[in-house]
Amino acid sequence: MNAEIVSIGTELLLGEINDTNATWIAQQLKDIGVNLFYRSTVGDNEARITAVLKLAMSRADIVITTGGLGPTVDDMTRQGVASAVGQPLEFHEDLMREIEAKFARFNAKMTPNNRLQAMLPQGATVIDNPVGTAPSFRCDMPDGAIISLPGVPREMKFLMENSVLPWLRERAGTSIIKLRVLRTAAAGESWVGSSLPI
Amino acid sequence: MNAEIVSIGTELLLGEINDTNATWIAQQLKDIGVNLFYRSTVGDNEARITAVLKLAMSRADIVITTGGLGPTVDDMTRQGVASAVGQPLEFHEDLMREIEAKFARFNAKMTPNNRLQAMLPQGATVIDNPVGTAPSFRCDMPDGAIISLPGVPREMKFLMENSVLPWLRERAGTSIIKLRVLRTAAAGESWVGSSLPI
Repeated sequence: MNAEIVSIGTELLLGEINDTNATWIAQQLKDIGVNLFYRSTVGDNEARITAVLKLAMSRADIVITTGGLGPTVDDMTRQGVASAVGQPLEFHEDLMREIEAKFARFNAKMTPNNRLQAMLPQGATVIDNPVGTAPSFRCDMPDGAIISLPGVPREMKFLMENSVLPWLRERAGTSIIKLRVLRTAAAGESWVGSSLPI
Repeated sequence: MNAEIVSIGTELLLGEINDTNATWIAQQLKDIGVNLFYRSTVGDNEARITAVLKLAMSRADIVITTGGLGPTVDDMTRQGVASAVGQPLEFHEDLMREIEAKFARFNAKMTPNNRLQAMLPQGATVIDNPVGTAPSFRCDMPDGAIISLPGVPREMKFLMENSVLPWLRERAGTSIIKLRVLRTAAAGESWVGSSLPI
């Protein structure tokens, strides 16, 4: 099983933050034997998100996106995924009620744009997010799936550990990658490289 | 002027290190007004490096790669760039002598595989690297260039600051992106988003 990570957010392209999400997800995928051949980063632009997702789907079975699920106009992941899988966005009344309940519980002010967060690509499966307000979702495709997670590291990790990794583990093969770091006292990597029997 | 960063190294796909190189380069590009619409990460695999570079060249004027310039068998950037620009690799006698002199100066052991580092795509311009042994280079294309830098952050930053950024500054436009972080005491981004006049 091959995966690709697509990190979404203009802040990553402006160098405002390090993409520690992608590093962490890569570690988790390695540990369960899912191959990762590519990572991509794209800004908050619907057309470019769609293009990157289509390419990722052509290269990998599982595409994991992070970021762009918030309520503001620059949060384009829902629209990008919908275009990439060729489905319209659909309003989920039940999801809306959950979001409203969370806002009430967190004592936070709700605005009309939060309605956007209850829109998901038609046919998507909701990934319940008890640790934040951004709904996450999975779009199953004939040859794999796109899984969209929030960019907030705490929420992303919770959803990975509690929903995505168990789901992937059931479907991944049994071969995993074991890493061993060998520290050498040799004079540089060229000498080590030329001494290995490969 | 649009750029794309291509980070090369299987260690990035295994989550062994954070890609702080790409973050730093993104900051520098922003400061001189070069747009960055995509970042890509690929492992030490010649065919996949070539494919990612071809795609990057189709999307951007300037492609900046980091990593994969060492002397060991997993250092595939030279071959990948050569394939992407459609040029054979060529041995540079003068570069070889420089590498030998550096090894002598650093008192390091040289092996036959260091000869690989004196191979560059035909027509490439050498970017002098006084702070390390990995030769860097630029391949000029009709519509832009591929610039290949080492993955060692200290070397990469030195070459960016002393060679690549001055070269880019001469060619980039004059519009730059200014960021201002506004801290708010409001109840969440959805409220701030809906209050902005856009």
